[in-house]
Amino acid sequence: MLTKCVSFRIRSSDFRSCLGASVVVLAAVNVVSSTAMAQLAGGAQQSGTTASLERAKILTAPGVFGVFSTYKIRPSYYRLAATERKGAAPEVLAVVDKHKTKVIVDAYLTRGLGASSDYFLRVHAYDLVAAQEFMTDFRATRFGMHSDVAENLVGVTKALNYITKEQSAALNAGLSGAGYTGDAPRYAIMIPVKKNAEWWNLTEAQRLKEMESHTMPTLAYLVNVRRKLYHSTGIADTDFITYFETNDIGAFNNLLVSLAQVPENKYHVRWGSPTILGTIQTMENVVTVLSATN
Amino acid sequence: MLTKCVSFRIRSSDFRSCLGASVVVLAAVNVVSSTAMAQLAGGAQQSGTTASLERAKILTAPGVFGVFSTYKIRPSYYRLAATERKGAAPEVLAVVDKHKTKVIVDAYLTRGLGASSDYFLRVHAYDLVAAQEFMTDFRATRFGMHSDVAENLVGVTKALNYITKEQSAALNAGLSGAGYTGDAPRYAIMIPVKKNAEWWNLTEAQRLKEMESHTMPTLAYLVNVRRKLYHSTGIADTDFITYFETNDIGAFNNLLVSLAQVPENKYHVRWGSPTILGTIQTMENVVTVLSATN
Amino acid sequence: MLTKCVSFRIRSSDFRSCLGASVVVLAAVNVVSSTAMAQLAGGAQQSGTTASLERAKILTAPGVFGVFSTYKIRPSYYRLAATERKGAAPEVLAVVDKHKTKVIVDAYLTRGLGASSDYFLRVHAYDLVAAQEFMTDFRATRFGMHSDVAENLVGVTKALNYITKEQSAALNAGLSGAGYTGDAPRYAIMIPVKKNAEWWNLTEAQRLKEMESHTMPTLAYLVNVRRKLYHSTGIADTDFITYFETNDIGAFNNLLVSLAQVPENKYHVRWGSPTILGTIQTMENVVTVLSATN
Amino acid sequence: MLTKCVSFRIRSSDFRSCLGASVVVLAAVNVVSSTAMAQLAGGAQQSGTTASLERAKILTAPGVFGVFSTYKIRPSYYRLAATERKGAAPEVLAVVDKHKTKVIVDAYLTRGLGASSDYFLRVHAYDLVAAQEFMTDFRATRFGMHSDVAENLVGVTKALNYITKEQSAALNAGLSGAGYTGDAPRYAIMIPVKKNAEWWNLTEAQRLKEMESHTMPTLAYLVNVRRKLYHSTGIADTDFITYFETNDIGAFNNLLVSLAQVPENKYHVRWGSPTILGTIQTMENVVTVLSATN
Amino acid sequence: MLTKCVSFRIRSSDFRSCLGASVVVLAAVNVVSSTAMAQLAGGAQQSGTTASLERAKILTAPGVFGVFSTYKIRPSYYRLAATERKGAAPEVLAVVDKHKTKVIVDAYLTRGLGASSDYFLRVHAYDLVAAQEFMTDFRATRFGMHSDVAENLVGVTKALNYITKEQSAALNAGLSGAGYTGDAPRYAIMIPVKKNAEWWNLTEAQRLKEMESHTMPTLAYLVNVRRKLYHSTGIADTDFITYFETNDIGAFNNLLVSLAQVPENKYHVRWGSPTILGTIQTMENVVTVLSATN
Repeated sequence: MLTKCVSFRIRSSDFRSCLGASVVVLAAVNVVSSTAMAQLAGGAQQSGTTASLERAKILTAPGVFGVFSTYKIRPSYYRLAATERKGAAPEVLAVVDKHKTKVIVDAYLTRGLGASSDYFLRVHAYDLVAAQEFMTDFRATRFGMHSDVAENLVGVTKALNYITKEQSAALNAGLSGAGYTGDAPRYAIMIPVKKNAEWWNLTEAQRLKEMESHTMPTLAYLVNVRRKLYHSTGIADTDFITYFETNDIGAFNNLLVSLAQVPENKYHVRWGSPTILGTIQTMENVVTVLSATN
Repeated sequence: MLTKCVSFRIRSSDFRSCLGASVVVLAAVNVVSSTAMAQLAGGAQQSGTTASLERAKILTAPGVFGVFSTYKIRPSYYRLAATERKGAAPEVLAVVDKHKTKVIVDAYLTRGLGASSDYFLRVHAYDLVAAQEFMTDFRATRFGMHSDVAENLVGVTKALNYITKEQSAALNAGLSGAGYTGDAPRYAIMIPVKKNAEWWNLTEAQRLKEMESHTMPTLAYLVNVRRKLYHSTGIADTDFITYFETNDIGAFNNLLVSLAQVPENKYHVRWGSPTILGTIQTMENVVTVLSATN
Repeated sequence: MLTKCVSFRIRSSDFRSCLGASVVVLAAVNVVSSTAMAQLAGGAQQSGTTASLERAKILTAPGVFGVFSTYKIRPSYYRLAATERKGAAPEVLAVVDKHKTKVIVDAYLTRGLGASSDYFLRVHAYDLVAAQEFMTDFRATRFGMHSDVAENLVGVTKALNYITKEQSAALNAGLSGAGYTGDAPRYAIMIPVKKNAEWWNLTEAQRLKEMESHTMPTLAYLVNVRRKLYHSTGIADTDFITYFETNDIGAFNNLLVSLAQVPENKYHVRWGSPTILGTIQTMENVVTVLSATN
Repeated sequence: MLTKCVSFRIRSSDFRSCLGASVVVLAAVNVVSSTAMAQLAGGAQQSGTTASLERAKILTAPGVFGVFSTYKIRPSYYRLAATERKGAAPEVLAVVDKHKTKVIVDAYLTRGLGASSDYFLRVHAYDLVAAQEFMTDFRATRFGMHSDVAENLVGVTKALNYITKEQSAALNAGLSGAGYTGDAPRYAIMIPVKKNAEWWNLTEAQRLKEMESHTMPTLAYLVNVRRKLYHSTGIADTDFITYFETNDIGAFNNLLVSLAQVPENKYHVRWGSPTILGTIQTMENVVTVLSATN
Repeated sequence: MLTKCVSFRIRSSDFRSCLGASVVVLAAVNVVSSTAMAQLAGGAQQSGTTASLERAKILTAPGVFGVFSTYKIRPSYYRLAATERKGAAPEVLAVVDKHKTKVIVDAYLTRGLGASSDYFLRVHAYDLVAAQEFMTDFRATRFGMHSDVAENLVGVTKALNYITKEQSAALNAGLSGAGYTGDAPRYAIMIPVKKNAEWWNLTEAQRLKEMESHTMPTLAYLVNVRRKLYHSTGIADTDFITYFETNDIGAFNNLLVSLAQVPENKYHVRWGSPTILGTIQTMENVVTVLSATN
């Protein structure tokens, strides 16, 4: 199973697809099978020597930390000389390279798609201190120094809780039976989820039943929306971070409407706020695009 | 059926009407028939060569992306030399022109009519990446660079959900039977709408019934308020973006009171916040007015 | 009936009373009869030539737009040279004068009485575009340019909805039977009001009953509190803007407590937030006081 | 009964106790009898000539305005030359002195004890315009000009509402029977309180009953916590401002827990937000401490 | 029982463990027995002469004040010359040293782990004025002067309320029977907790029962999560400050999920907001790391 990142070019923009081969979905395992995913990544931060982290592994293992941080560039950045801004991308890439044995960094452009940020980063690490050290170094670059953090959520991956082979065999099979077959995704969406005390005080069996109702309508979207889940209770002001990749925003909207229509929705106290929609880009492209002026 | 933009001049201000000929209303099709709409648009960004997008088509098709972004000008803009601010409008218009084969841009002046913004843009595109690329270029102009984004909502148009010929024939006929006959609208209003879990967990039939109650009192206002709807669940922190054009603010206030008086209102968790009220202007006028100092 | 503005001087401050002769109260008509109101206004912006708007008429007519905007002065203003700040008042007055055939402007000092603003403006116009044009010109003055808008609410006046001669004869008579007899008011209070879906879904008869309960305890305060109401549903994130003038803050506090004690209060989702309390001043005085440094 | 302010020095800080001799408590009269209160105040702003306001009287009379404003110093202040900052205290004291015939000013240091402010002022005046004039002059000093207002609440004192000799004789006697006997208080706490529509729609008798339950557990704390109440409905976004002085923070915490445990708490929509905790200081000390840099 | 702070070095970062030997847990006593804790602290601010406060004692005594403050560094800091920033750490350490007879200061790095802050401090003092004096001096250093306070909560320690030997013998024994045996903790988490009026209006017996349900699932985590509790009702906008140290974020997440699953959770009106996650560091390291640029 090939699980490297995919860089490609559609309509004059660089994109990179980076979910990993075996994706833990919201409550399921989503086997990725698109041909696009079979290509090898060539982005600077993934062009790895043998010392780099193995992307396929860290993106599918439990017990991995995922840090999502969204940033807004301060106006002061554009008062720097153009040549100084031109040097920003190599400087950031050098920091990514320095930490490549400990963290994997994905970058997304959100400018024009949401008010709260211009870009966001997703950092994976086996050790949370390593993620913090990367973040600290990133913020010490010129680009990072002129960025304000808007949101910064920490989560950790876990094995499946509910829709397991043992507890819910048919649905588990359904989840494994279909994989992403759409175009290489150009969009990623990050949505924090927090549930109320009533949810957490349901019995295990009741929560399983609700998660089955939740999973049912999502089966149809396995082919065009990839999903990954992080747990955050107690380490951020959210219970979960849900992450999606798609190339079909219309289908994604339909998926989310169908999730709104199951009873589980009644237990949400946070679902979004913010909803972060970005295009999947190389880190180099994110820094370069945001460094340009007319 | 002529559906181009209309530029006109009322009491010393430039206005432009830009909804499109066949308007998808909140839950209906609204055939626009005002004579004003029969004139051709002459605004810079619509004076299109054959390469420009066809306005009538993109404004009525399903599956089109609508990006609404509101902006506030930073004080720093007014510390620029007057000559530099004078160059702002041509610079912005050049960016609009550069993207005219992929996006259509409408501009509105909100200064003095709301606290959260000075102006807002509505961008339509068949491809969301194209909209982002325009936004990114716009923000790289001097005017865009000195603007702070206050709100930025992404929506997508869809075919009618509820008040269709099949499901609700009489109301559907009512909606098609009346068109806008008022003066060319000088005002546009953008109101985000989010519904709670109880709404989404109603049966399809219950939601249809509520939307019929919602549609009934709106029929009387087809003649003086135009409407258009965008879907946003999962791609913004709202379920819908509702957009209106009118020249009769009093009638519009009455319409919204009548919508407050139907049971559907009980399912709202967001209705406004912000409510954005602006005057319909050419992009050139928006930039020029906001660039002036005493 | 004389209904011009009143300028007077109490304890070293300039005040101006500006409600208009026939005041539409929250749910009633309030005939103003104080002797103070019988004097003619002498403030710069009211010293009108024949071309000026007739104050008495615009303040009592339905279908008039009222724009309330609150402002906070940015620290940068006080870094301007004192001579530049000295020129601020004449510059603002010139703008008021330029627009006097289309808008009437009232100014209030809020510094020291609330955290969110230093002053606020109330602008009346028959045409909302005219109000926007004034606001835009005002913001282009040095004083306006160094002001941040904190709140900006648009409302429109209407004829009485509930306590009419036909629907509620006795209360209507009560409202007409008493007029303001207190000292010329030095204070104005602006309180936005938004009602929930339950309120709007009551029957007309139920709402009339609630408004009668609301009106009853207010009769006693007609003599020392003047009131005016604006409708904002759909054009601002509030349903109503309630505006008061008084010289007796203790009585006003009692009035508002008595309004809190009627069932209508249970339907409020916004009542204040912000509550804006200011002293009634001439525009010249507001600008001059806020331009001074020790 | 001596009721002047007390200045004293504990562990290298200047403190001043300023509640007044006869304190209107939350729902009671609290006779202050500590020996500390028997000393005379010597602070600059109280060292009054005969023209100064009588502190004991204004602090116990009904119908007096209390303005509470909290401030945060802007970073720009510390970019001023040290000599300029050294001149700040005399400049502020001169303004306090100028207004001493119309207002009484108390100052508190909050830096390090809360995030929203560095200091707060409590201003008493018989005429609210006089309080505004002081505030306006204070903000025109260098120190005031570099301060941002975080909260600014206006209240007015009233005679007792509930626990009167007539309505609740035993509790009224209990309240009068004990006075403050602790050390001179070094701490002041300001907590805004807003009650919901259900509270205000209770009958007078029901509210009296709840206030008796409220008063009962507070009797034990009369000896170590002083209290004063201001009414704000309609003139600020709160119904009450509650003000406390104590030297025993642990006892104060216990008092507030006991107030949380009575049914009245169920009617709160605002209790704190912010809770302001500060040390009682002279105005001179507040300005001097906050003007120092390492 | 040895209770000094522990400094150690894991993967290129300095850490310090500082909870104290006998830790008051949320509702229990947690005897710390890890070998790591048996080492002596060597951090600058603890390397104390005999005049320093005794750490073990102040961290376990009731009636001690704990002030938690979170900070964000302003962009202006990075515009200072590098040499000036290099001097920041010694300057801060000198302030810590100056106050060491009255306060104990712990420092944590939060950059990259949360959006609201870059670092936070925990200050313990027997006298709250002493804590304020330290904070004031800290803010007067270059580093403090360029820091914005994001949150600042004051709490006080108390003896156990619920799970005492008398009231709940078995659970009390369970709490005493297990101690922390994990690796020296690298992470600290601070979570404010506020409970609603329903909670506070329960009987003492009902609250005891809920706290027993709360305590039960926490026993299993005594070995890898340390806990300490502060009371804040009336002195901050929270009822409690809960503080944790752990080296196992996954276990901590499980602990917090189990606390979400007991009925007590239904009484929370604030649980987090913010949740502050940081790495335990020496003060020197926090200042040095945040002072560096690429």
